[in-house]
Amino acid sequence: MITMQPIGIIHTPFRQLAEMPIQPAGAVGVQGTVEIFEPFWAGLKDLDGFSHIILLYLFHGSQGFSLEVVPFLDTQPRGLFATRAPRRPNPIGLSTVRLDRIENGNLQVRNVDILDKTPLLDIKPYVPEFDAQTEVRSGWLEQARKTVARRKSDNRFGSSQES
Amino acid sequence: MITMQPIGIIHTPFRQLAEMPIQPAGAVGVQGTVEIFEPFWAGLKDLDGFSHIILLYLFHGSQGFSLEVVPFLDTQPRGLFATRAPRRPNPIGLSTVRLDRIENGNLQVRNVDILDKTPLLDIKPYVPEFDAQTEVRSGWLEQARKTVARRKSDNRFGSSQES
Repeated sequence: MITMQPIGIIHTPFRQLAEMPIQPAGAVGVQGTVEIFEPFWAGLKDLDGFSHIILLYLFHGSQGFSLEVVPFLDTQPRGLFATRAPRRPNPIGLSTVRLDRIENGNLQVRNVDILDKTPLLDIKPYVPEFDAQTEVRSGWLEQARKTVARRKSDNRFGSSQES
Repeated sequence: MITMQPIGIIHTPFRQLAEMPIQPAGAVGVQGTVEIFEPFWAGLKDLDGFSHIILLYLFHGSQGFSLEVVPFLDTQPRGLFATRAPRRPNPIGLSTVRLDRIENGNLQVRNVDILDKTPLLDIKPYVPEFDAQTEVRSGWLEQARKTVARRKSDNRFGSSQES
């Protein structure tokens, strides 16, 4: 058993589980604020040199999990780990967002597909050499992923932050 | 306070904290096995359609954290959240690896920069539309990241899985 605690709170325009964008790709331009708790501010030094950051957060609206789910972008059941659905054994969400600026422990970010008041667990700098891959196959999402910008969530997961 | 528990164990050739590769980019070709615990096998359906997967895991060798660190790839202190150092308030590691095949709950993966016997927390499919970014600035890592394939860790973090 591992215990974790929030280092901040993510504020976004999305106050309800339904009608949310699916992934940052469906949330282009949507602005949010990541409020970092003051004891952690010293860790933000140098972060403003990065145009993109990876947010790891808690899917706080989700409860329990199923090992097969029908994702928002599909019509048939898929294995949970082949999806980004929020109800997971360890409900950790991952979104790469654009970082506009940092002021007094508040990170102004864009392309946010995250529920309002989401507890933040970690921030990592996005580095293409580490995080971007080439020659990628993406299974059942190969077709569906191209439509993500036009799709919205519904309430099927209790929490519906990801595809 | 949030509690999490491992869904599997990551087996790799790296049994010591020093002399590890820095990031998957420094571990090209290195093979490992991700052993998923049997109660979670049903969640692996459809995952074999993806060439790359994102592993979220516990930096189990790391203890405590400092908000400023001298990263492996640099000579001066940087804010913790502008680095991928393993000693973090919530010690969650993130590596995107290549998935070769899945047999009996064992995932054969490549480009592994992870310590042997690392507890696995989650797997997400890597999807370029969600996870790959363009027009990226990467701050202090802009120069250093290009040398990552030639660099190794040392023991400075107690656990030294990331740059």
